Amino acid sequence: MELDQLKPETATPRQVRQYLRDKLVVIASNRGPVEFRRVENGIIKPFRGAGGLVSAMSTALTATDAVWISVARTREDVITALAYPKRRIPMPLENPQYFLRFLVTDKREFHLYYNVVSNSVLWYLNHYMLDLTGNPCFDDEFHTAWKEGYRKVNRLFADEIVKEVRAQGKKPLIFLQDYHLYLCASHIRSRLPEALIHHFTHSPWVEPDYLKFLPTGYRREILEGMLSCDVVGFHTRQYAENFLRCCEESDVLHLKVDSKRGMVVRDGRLTFVRHYPISIDHEALEKLAMRPEVELHRKRLRKIAGERKILLRVDRVEPTKNILRGLKAYRLFLRHHPEWHEKVIFFHFLYPSRQELHEYRNLRREIEEEVHSINREFGTLEWDPVYLEIEDNYLRSIAGLMEFDVLVVNPVMDGMNLVAKEGAVLNRKNGIIIISTRAGVWGELKGAAIPVNPLDVMELAEAMRTALRMGERRKKALSRKARQVVESNTSFNWFLQQMRALQRAEKERGKGTVPEEPPVPPLPRYEHFD
Amino acid sequence: MELDQLKPETATPRQVRQYLRDKLVVIASNRGPVEFRRVENGIIKPFRGAGGLVSAMSTALTATDAVWISVARTREDVITALAYPKRRIPMPLENPQYFLRFLVTDKREFHLYYNVVSNSVLWYLNHYMLDLTGNPCFDDEFHTAWKEGYRKVNRLFADEIVKEVRAQGKKPLIFLQDYHLYLCASHIRSRLPEALIHHFTHSPWVEPDYLKFLPTGYRREILEGMLSCDVVGFHTRQYAENFLRCCEESDVLHLKVDSKRGMVVRDGRLTFVRHYPISIDHEALEKLAMRPEVELHRKRLRKIAGERKILLRVDRVEPTKNILRGLKAYRLFLRHHPEWHEKVIFFHFLYPSRQELHEYRNLRREIEEEVHSINREFGTLEWDPVYLEIEDNYLRSIAGLMEFDVLVVNPVMDGMNLVAKEGAVLNRKNGIIIISTRAGVWGELKGAAIPVNPLDVMELAEAMRTALRMGERRKKALSRKARQVVESNTSFNWFLQQMRALQRAEKERGKGTVPEEPPVPPLPRYEHFD
Repeated sequence: MELDQLKPETATPRQVRQYLRDKLVVIASNRGPVEFRRVENGIIKPFRGAGGLVSAMSTALTATDAVWISVARTREDVITALAYPKRRIPMPLENPQYFLRFLVTDKREFHLYYNVVSNSVLWYLNHYMLDLTGNPCFDDEFHTAWKEGYRKVNRLFADEIVKEVRAQGKKPLIFLQDYHLYLCASHIRSRLPEALIHHFTHSPWVEPDYLKFLPTGYRREILEGMLSCDVVGFHTRQYAENFLRCCEESDVLHLKVDSKRGMVVRDGRLTFVRHYPISIDHEALEKLAMRPEVELHRKRLRKIAGERKILLRVDRVEPTKNILRGLKAYRLFLRHHPEWHEKVIFFHFLYPSRQELHEYRNLRREIEEEVHSINREFGTLEWDPVYLEIEDNYLRSIAGLMEFDVLVVNPVMDGMNLVAKEGAVLNRKNGIIIISTRAGVWGELKGAAIPVNPLDVMELAEAMRTALRMGERRKKALSRKARQVVESNTSFNWFLQQMRALQRAEKERGKGTVPEEPPVPPLPRYEHFD
Repeated sequence: MELDQLKPETATPRQVRQYLRDKLVVIASNRGPVEFRRVENGIIKPFRGAGGLVSAMSTALTATDAVWISVARTREDVITALAYPKRRIPMPLENPQYFLRFLVTDKREFHLYYNVVSNSVLWYLNHYMLDLTGNPCFDDEFHTAWKEGYRKVNRLFADEIVKEVRAQGKKPLIFLQDYHLYLCASHIRSRLPEALIHHFTHSPWVEPDYLKFLPTGYRREILEGMLSCDVVGFHTRQYAENFLRCCEESDVLHLKVDSKRGMVVRDGRLTFVRHYPISIDHEALEKLAMRPEVELHRKRLRKIAGERKILLRVDRVEPTKNILRGLKAYRLFLRHHPEWHEKVIFFHFLYPSRQELHEYRNLRREIEEEVHSINREFGTLEWDPVYLEIEDNYLRSIAGLMEFDVLVVNPVMDGMNLVAKEGAVLNRKNGIIIISTRAGVWGELKGAAIPVNPLDVMELAEAMRTALRMGERRKKALSRKARQVVESNTSFNWFLQQMRALQRAEKERGKGTVPEEPPVPPLPRYEHFD
């Protein structure tokens, strides 16, 4: 089965599964497809974890005996694992298609790997959000966190993966996910030289001049990890190009880079750099939209809105979602365009998030205050310009996404953003999407949505007006285009492209055509200074 | 006189002055060479303003009737200007070589131009230091600040420059300085198509992916301004390459870019992109070092230090100087290397800075606390590991720079950093410089100093130890190299390179060889969306 001869439009999951028949698919991600928790009556139940990834990976997960490895996050995760032979939990429990394995780490090493390194530094780095004059400070504590947390857990992941591969004896295809697992491939490669390894980064990737804020040693380890893969994937061309430029300008490894063909060679090993945006399972989403609860939410929403045009935001209460600037823009819009008073309502369907953190609690309070202040300034007896609801309620969000006239998605920096994609397929009213140019999805929605610079609230205010005044024909054309774009790039397609890239990599490897390169130079001198 | 046939090593100021004889040099910078203030007895006296630039521009300023245009910052600036015919103040007063003209702006427009736009946004942007989830917020107030402050003052500068040029009738050479004046050249070019215009950016320049956080309209105006110059200059190759890439990836202007030759063409007009690091006047510095007050400071310093090795920092109390991380590194060094206890002392010769700002007062307090804490943790009856002095005292700093064994210069991001250069030429003890790789000067000091990542305090702690343990021969070699590097790139050389680049640009213009390009495309569609 030659995947790269299959056209994405005509390829079927069956063909891919055929290719996968004699292979072992291993997926590794920090968070697993489910998390087990104890519910009221003492029973342990699974709750949806890395949901987007599950549906995106469903082709690989269906009937292929795949294994998914993730960190156990609850006591119940561990208990559940112990209940199954070889700690392999069949998933889904009622209709097993693949196995879930939990990696059990100790509390301290998880904290160091997850909080100290991944989320306090790598995530901020990837979003151009390091606070240079404050944090991070790479001191002995951080170095310890790197060694005993990040590096350690990456090695534990590799150990588990290698164990699975060796136990099954099939040809392995390994899919590593995101910035938590940058180093994992190094440890796999040294023990499984033949394995096909794919890494996908779900956040942005920055340009080399910015990456250099990371100390030399860490940068080298990360690049070594990434370049131990056969393919590294990103959501957008920009991120992939940024990665290629980081390789081109690398002062920590000697690399040969062919940017045009997206190839990097190190020590005679080739890595392909590719970009394919992750998608949603629009069919499953449509099914969910049929649920009667959704209909009830829609009715409630329409009753609140009345004849008014509906602006909508669906987001977690999280700083990069840029909710406050969105409200400021709405205030400007109302101030400058009184003809719209009483004729619009801005629904904020928000999810509470990380309420244990001071910063997040503050943000929530500021949002609430801003909403009240806008409602005080412009509201009337019959009209609150903003309707705010902070509640963990997905079906309500689906209802909102079906009903909006204008969807506001203005994150300051966002790897992809799936709310925009959900809105594009769910909406029933030829609604218009306003999209931040710093969201990965902007690359796909170009020409099908109104772009805004996320820091420019004047532009956002004008975009709201533009969207509201748009004629029916234009609206229809744009919203149809948005829907088509999202529907044509299915999750299957995302996965197929990864498979094809891996197969291509395998062939190149077989040819042995990787160009020779000069010997590895000495380490940058400032590491050996004396 | 063909400047580009002169070799920098053999060219003399006389030759350049000869070339300048029939030309009018105009320098424009936000801050002028002096600032007038009233002293105790009621007399108005000049105080040194943009000192570094004055000495760097001295060739152009000597006996060429140059004009320097800056914003009046004090009442006394205005009063002094009014006392001279045509408001041209002869400079220096006792031995006039050029004229100073003050631009008088009203308080509000200066505030908008200087505080709101230049220092709260452009400066942070250039240093990768935007706080994405907080400021800036490009709202109607900011747009007003841009229009009625930044754009306006840039136009006022252009008006003054054009007036001077027209009054004198000589061929003008115009030198615009820094991020305050990005738009100025647009307004000059439209009225003086033949003028030779040079812009020099004294801060870093970021990569295109980061620049895009600035709204489209501003980005376009800035690039239009820069590309109305014949030459734009930067301190380092990195900054110049970043600028070229911003042109290459521009979505706001249609440009042709030849990165290798550092050329950008817009609307048939050519702009050269060059890099030449600014320098110091080491001869003047040596003279200053001979002053008896300096000798007194050296004696005092040696008495405090005794037999101990001297580490030194000379900086303004300013967040990007990274003073706290420097202290943290020193603490780690003392903790990990007790053999150095009582054998070192770390002088902090700091200048107070912007004490009217909360953030700066806080920083000062934190520094003082960190110093006390280190002295408490390690100090003995005879030994304080850190000696802190916050005082506006340049001669004391010169004394310190003559006496250090190790100079710590670890800014998180710094266009150039002249303290390192001053240290290289002043030091009498084969002292070693530790330099941040994010300081522009690092490009020159490579191989003559110990580089550190400014966020990596472990690396800095190790660098301190490495520097302290270095053998005499190696120290001698490094410190000699550092001095040679700095002395060989004189201020005159910096100016000469600007002149040569301008002359080259003039020739290319004469040839009319600028390649044709396709017609200008429509504006990016999202500005015309409807």
